[in-house]
Amino acid sequence: MSLTVVGTVAFDAIETPFGKTDKIIGGAGTYIALAASYFQKNTNLISVVGNDFPETYLKLLKNHNIDIEGIQIKKDEKTFFWSGKYHDNMNKRDTLVTELNSLANFDPVVPDSYQNSKYLMLGNLTPSVQQKVIDRMDKRPEFIMMDTMNFWMDKTPDDLKKTVSNVDLLCINDEEAQQFSGENSLLSAAEKIIADGPKYLIIKKGKHGALLFGENKIFSAPALPLKTVFDPTGAGDTFAGGFIGYLSDTDDLSFENMKNALIIGSVMASFTIEKFGTEGLQQLSKSEIGKRVKQFIDLTRFNLDPEKI
Amino acid sequence: MSLTVVGTVAFDAIETPFGKTDKIIGGAGTYIALAASYFQKNTNLISVVGNDFPETYLKLLKNHNIDIEGIQIKKDEKTFFWSGKYHDNMNKRDTLVTELNSLANFDPVVPDSYQNSKYLMLGNLTPSVQQKVIDRMDKRPEFIMMDTMNFWMDKTPDDLKKTVSNVDLLCINDEEAQQFSGENSLLSAAEKIIADGPKYLIIKKGKHGALLFGENKIFSAPALPLKTVFDPTGAGDTFAGGFIGYLSDTDDLSFENMKNALIIGSVMASFTIEKFGTEGLQQLSKSEIGKRVKQFIDLTRFNLDPEKI
Repeated sequence: MSLTVVGTVAFDAIETPFGKTDKIIGGAGTYIALAASYFQKNTNLISVVGNDFPETYLKLLKNHNIDIEGIQIKKDEKTFFWSGKYHDNMNKRDTLVTELNSLANFDPVVPDSYQNSKYLMLGNLTPSVQQKVIDRMDKRPEFIMMDTMNFWMDKTPDDLKKTVSNVDLLCINDEEAQQFSGENSLLSAAEKIIADGPKYLIIKKGKHGALLFGENKIFSAPALPLKTVFDPTGAGDTFAGGFIGYLSDTDDLSFENMKNALIIGSVMASFTIEKFGTEGLQQLSKSEIGKRVKQFIDLTRFNLDPEKI
Repeated sequence: MSLTVVGTVAFDAIETPFGKTDKIIGGAGTYIALAASYFQKNTNLISVVGNDFPETYLKLLKNHNIDIEGIQIKKDEKTFFWSGKYHDNMNKRDTLVTELNSLANFDPVVPDSYQNSKYLMLGNLTPSVQQKVIDRMDKRPEFIMMDTMNFWMDKTPDDLKKTVSNVDLLCINDEEAQQFSGENSLLSAAEKIIADGPKYLIIKKGKHGALLFGENKIFSAPALPLKTVFDPTGAGDTFAGGFIGYLSDTDDLSFENMKNALIIGSVMASFTIEKFGTEGLQQLSKSEIGKRVKQFIDLTRFNLDPEKI
């Protein structure tokens, strides 16, 4: 029951009020695959890097049992590089540098061994590239999840709509849901988006948690209250990776199980934001993850009998 | 096990994108007492109105079994009047008119029959007036809950700190918690506020729900996703009223029961914002309330075993 992920593998340089990094491993595909790898032991990654991408970073992925046959290494090009700076309250960030490099002409290749993946996760990328991955699978995966962002809503709205119409679950944040649907209420936005395509929708609300919509049901997961958000980079990707990793590993597409996957996504994201880059995701134990699941249970569980009000 | 509430009883004139009201009954005390009255059958209200306050509005309160002996009717004065206009997305409002009138010199009187109240709810008011009510109780109520707002943090910070230090539970919104504590993270804000006084803290986050802190525990309640927020006026007061009404009626001050009270507060607030003013709160049945509690259960309940991750 393998999972194939497509997404960027990149260099990030991050500055927050707590410090500054050199070029470290980043990219949506990296965060998604790392988070998923804690649950899904057959995680495949499709991406592209340049000749400057160090072997140690590829090893980091391999050490998490991630199949990297799908990562093209472009001999004459450099790796996608992003640099950003977060402001005091971590709510806003400025992009300082974006060098697309090898990502500019990314033509995704699906290795033979990925062809039978039942689950496909499209990390945030050019929508037409996401679509290419769907098209290049011999048969349509049973469940396709897609992440995207406002940038593509502005830049390639038609391509975006096409790809969205071909997936089972769309994952975006609250402002993006409002922009994409033209609706202010998230409930109305969800109804409209689901009517137009994907059966399920996740709306990420950052520190306010996330909502899952589908089958005329709604589930709300809080974010774990933390004293310090050290570095929010990759939180949304980690969330998506935890979600699809758990969902594909349990191989149960019921709404009830998607609720659990949403909690797992929130748990994994809480580890990412505690440290720089992927550091918080690199060496987690099942017992650490379990403890944090318990925190989410304590945070949300109440025993009120609707019949005895 | 009675509950005494102090808070404004007022005229409100409200304009939202959905319509406009004449002067209708409003005020923190009104919303709190109405919401509480669905649970606590012995709810007392301390307030002040002018000679222009119609008998029908007093009857509305009496019909909910609210004891209004504590509402002073000032023969030569007018009732506190507030008028506000909400903008398109309902996140911002402009105050158009504030006429303090009889509220300007409000000197709260605690009737004898209120003296043995085990529960006291201080609605948002001048902190020194809230303190006067505490001082005028023959013996300190067992549980005092207090609502306030940023206005008093700016205007009478010392009076505010004094009153806050004398209550068991403080209820404020997220921005107010940040301002009051000087901390950006809500978790850090809560720790600081609790260290300085009240044992429990509720942080209201509007459409993102509410957090309850105390005994080194945290509980998170979502807000019910709604298609239309018709009129947010009084939502926070209703929330507080539902909370203290349920808590005082069940007379169980455990953190577990406060979780239930937080859900009840959220349920009651969801009724208020669906209609203008207090309309959504005027004629609820226990079965309607129970149905909405069920919605909150569906919205938050998941079955993930931390041992089986």
